Amino acid sequence: MNITESTLSIFALGGINEIGKNMYVLQYGDDIILIDCGAKFPDETLLGVDLIIQDISYLQKNKNKIRALLVTHGHEDHIGGIPYLLKQLSIPVYATNLTLGLITLKLKEHGLLRATELKMINADSNIEAGAMNVTFFEVNHSIPDCLGIAIHTPEGTVVHTGDFKFDLTPINGRYPDFYKLAKIGNRGVLLLLSESTNAESPGFTQSERIVGEHIEDAFRKADQKIFISTFASNVYRVQQIINAAVKTNRKVALLGRSMVNIVSVAAELGYLTIPDGTLIEANEINRMAPDEVVIICTGSQGEPMAALSRLSTSNYRQASVVAGDTVILASSPIPGNEKSVSHIIDNLFHLGAKVIYGSGSTSGMHVSGHAFQEELKLMLTLLKPTYFIPIHGEYRMLQQHRTLAESVGLKSENIFIINNGDVVDITNSVATQTRRVQAGNVFVDGLGIGDVGKIVLRDRKLLSEEGMLIAVVTLAKMDCKIISNPHIISRGFVYERAAEDLYNEVNQLVITIVNQSQRSNGDKRNELKHNLKKAIENLLYTQTKRRPMILPFIIEI
Amino acid sequence: MNITESTLSIFALGGINEIGKNMYVLQYGDDIILIDCGAKFPDETLLGVDLIIQDISYLQKNKNKIRALLVTHGHEDHIGGIPYLLKQLSIPVYATNLTLGLITLKLKEHGLLRATELKMINADSNIEAGAMNVTFFEVNHSIPDCLGIAIHTPEGTVVHTGDFKFDLTPINGRYPDFYKLAKIGNRGVLLLLSESTNAESPGFTQSERIVGEHIEDAFRKADQKIFISTFASNVYRVQQIINAAVKTNRKVALLGRSMVNIVSVAAELGYLTIPDGTLIEANEINRMAPDEVVIICTGSQGEPMAALSRLSTSNYRQASVVAGDTVILASSPIPGNEKSVSHIIDNLFHLGAKVIYGSGSTSGMHVSGHAFQEELKLMLTLLKPTYFIPIHGEYRMLQQHRTLAESVGLKSENIFIINNGDVVDITNSVATQTRRVQAGNVFVDGLGIGDVGKIVLRDRKLLSEEGMLIAVVTLAKMDCKIISNPHIISRGFVYERAAEDLYNEVNQLVITIVNQSQRSNGDKRNELKHNLKKAIENLLYTQTKRRPMILPFIIEI
Repeated sequence: MNITESTLSIFALGGINEIGKNMYVLQYGDDIILIDCGAKFPDETLLGVDLIIQDISYLQKNKNKIRALLVTHGHEDHIGGIPYLLKQLSIPVYATNLTLGLITLKLKEHGLLRATELKMINADSNIEAGAMNVTFFEVNHSIPDCLGIAIHTPEGTVVHTGDFKFDLTPINGRYPDFYKLAKIGNRGVLLLLSESTNAESPGFTQSERIVGEHIEDAFRKADQKIFISTFASNVYRVQQIINAAVKTNRKVALLGRSMVNIVSVAAELGYLTIPDGTLIEANEINRMAPDEVVIICTGSQGEPMAALSRLSTSNYRQASVVAGDTVILASSPIPGNEKSVSHIIDNLFHLGAKVIYGSGSTSGMHVSGHAFQEELKLMLTLLKPTYFIPIHGEYRMLQQHRTLAESVGLKSENIFIINNGDVVDITNSVATQTRRVQAGNVFVDGLGIGDVGKIVLRDRKLLSEEGMLIAVVTLAKMDCKIISNPHIISRGFVYERAAEDLYNEVNQLVITIVNQSQRSNGDKRNELKHNLKKAIENLLYTQTKRRPMILPFIIEI
Repeated sequence: MNITESTLSIFALGGINEIGKNMYVLQYGDDIILIDCGAKFPDETLLGVDLIIQDISYLQKNKNKIRALLVTHGHEDHIGGIPYLLKQLSIPVYATNLTLGLITLKLKEHGLLRATELKMINADSNIEAGAMNVTFFEVNHSIPDCLGIAIHTPEGTVVHTGDFKFDLTPINGRYPDFYKLAKIGNRGVLLLLSESTNAESPGFTQSERIVGEHIEDAFRKADQKIFISTFASNVYRVQQIINAAVKTNRKVALLGRSMVNIVSVAAELGYLTIPDGTLIEANEINRMAPDEVVIICTGSQGEPMAALSRLSTSNYRQASVVAGDTVILASSPIPGNEKSVSHIIDNLFHLGAKVIYGSGSTSGMHVSGHAFQEELKLMLTLLKPTYFIPIHGEYRMLQQHRTLAESVGLKSENIFIINNGDVVDITNSVATQTRRVQAGNVFVDGLGIGDVGKIVLRDRKLLSEEGMLIAVVTLAKMDCKIISNPHIISRGFVYERAAEDLYNEVNQLVITIVNQSQRSNGDKRNELKHNLKKAIENLLYTQTKRRPMILPFIIEI
């Protein structure tokens, strides 16, 4: 299919499902709008990978058409890829005040700040992008200053919700704008892209406000130091912690680089109200009476180098958790982090701390920032889209979101569950999904972008499970006689000193195989290498039932 | 402290907390009783380890004193270590009919069946073990034929609950024996060891019976094939699945080795009632009409080689999941398995299956086999022990169990939270914890038991994160001149073909370093090796910000 000028095309380079992080592309004719550019931290199967970003080949080929990058909010999975994108392409970035503040932190780190065109927007902004016109609406989420996006194209209006929930008692008094949403819906929405993170959760999320009440209660009960850990970017929660500290006559210290950075950006831009004299430096903690201080720290997801983890092993210079202190985890472990978070809780109990924790909202110290089922249905009902693409969730969540959409009256055939790179084309109000563009994950490892691929990861996995054994043997080029006895070393296989006999056997085997190959004429080096590999593999497997990576080296002189 | 004849000593070689699996030791004078001998599958941090068992040094030193191994029930974490124990020590094994059946499967695999003395017991058995006398009581759990143990010693009675819940409507009609428990309590319990798996969960577990009702409902709604996955050892659930299949006129096929093995043992020993003609072979599935068959399969924990995982990727020879089939996960992921289970659910949705799943009891397809808080308090109240050791849980769960015990009136100073190897000694009714015996984890990797230790695992981790680079250089012994140019290879570091320039630089660097070392006199080979390692490390880190393991080889001829 060719894209004609009157075709509206929508696809994701990341963010339809959890493989790859948020980046959506809207193209109408020669105009392209990008929404979000996130990054994702790898799970434990991606050995040694630092960050996952998107394959932007399509954008590189069409760079002259890109009019704008619109950013819905300042979370890592929506802004983390921006520096890598801007290193390749020059695109103006549109975002709200706080979001721009957080993007700025990143661009500074990467030395990209000067070269980037940053444009501040708010819910009332209106952007022209070629044949398209963009308006916005505010949404509630676990970070302030979040936008949903309505893109008005000649084919019709496309709405992208961003991450959202409906918080009817929001901390910042910015109530959901139902009128604006209903008005957009009333004028007609061609296509809705709505997030699916909590599509499996029945009901309606609780308000962030209840967390504040629980925090204040816990503060009133504590008679020693209070440590409380949460996402640094959850400015509402940080505000509520500060409020509770002020009410209970405690000073507040911040531990962890991202906590210090984000709080300072948020305070500077007016998103946090911190009474003068409330904040103290980390090195003042030990000079305060225990019942006069609250320590807000990073590491609520069990990150091993963050403040909470180091506190739990008494490994933080400026502060320590002692028996009787209160430690609050105002968070819920993201799937995959359960074990490291549990481990930290165990360690805190070992120190004698009163630990307040609990999955989901059971402790009252956490509520989700993502819409539950009734809210997802509410969004669908307000906007009444013709077509619907559930985004941002694992496949089963997209399916659940589909079921929810059907339950509020959307036609099954008008719902597209697609993968990153699958294109939905809309012409004359008819949507089809028949073609793909290049999309996928790119791994960042150290300075390398995209140079760690399947083969390297496969080798890392092999090495990690059984280790390796190296055998070096030096031969005379002329007659293939062994000049220097084989050298055998291993790593990650067996403890070398305990395996002397096994090593001697390998040594002897190498000599035997090399001598055999001398007798049979015409042996090539690669064949000898192969024979050595196979023979050593067999010997080791028989003796140990393990299969380390075998690396034979033949040096010919 | 010396153990005198009148001291009762209790400790665990595994199973007090989640590090290491169940094995408890009771010693009175010259008589030792062992309770359970489990094994644990490693988590992803123990790279390449197959199984974790206990350090049994203490038992080897005291082998003449061991009178019996008592086994509470047939789960892996209570019987998995038995073959490894019996390879070292000859001990009579006491267990119930089904438990012995499952132990027998293991002993056969290890060729140990003939040499082992197996003794069948039941709740009415009475065992003399030196100065001690042992009686039993039945408990409910997620496998039939479970026992709690009461060991009557001259110091008093020690009760070990085993794994338990109170199921007031049990599938097999074997109601909790409150009278027997209360009688033991009334006669006086010196020490209780009670399991803590669900000490964080408020309330009372639901009965296994409700799972049966939900299964039957789901079966009635299904109009094609039904796949249902559960632990093979949950014989009650397998029975309820078979009952529902019979009621809805479906035949039953079993997929997965452990499902076939355990069902056949359970049926043979009378723990399963399967009407004639109900079971069909796996290769008959495709000959049946889709609405005439139920397939019970292994893999409910996301194990990659088990039936459910292979079905989810259409990779099972005798059966396949097609659009419209129903797949039920009658299980809840064990912490750490969430992601692999979710991945399977995603794949099943991709195949178009109706997937019924849910964490905890939200789907109605799973209930826990471990006592919740009210049941733990009930056990404590029935037995009214003087001393209490919470066992079998992570540290925070042991702490929660301590709080529960205090809430029902136990004295705080009479509760011991200990680690594996910590000994509680009781003399003249006074308990103290001051000494330790050797205890710890032993890793099984292939045929090796205990030969994979910290160094090997550290190397595997290093290799897994950044890979490695090997540089081999051959020198003349006489003048240290390079005879053969350096050979450089890497694995798991960068994709070799893409990194030619980097390799050339390393090559050049090796030559430079070797030449420098020739000029400075007295250089030793180890020093040269060290210099090569450092120089290559620096070069690679500067160029790539990665730190692969560097292995320099110097061959002197």
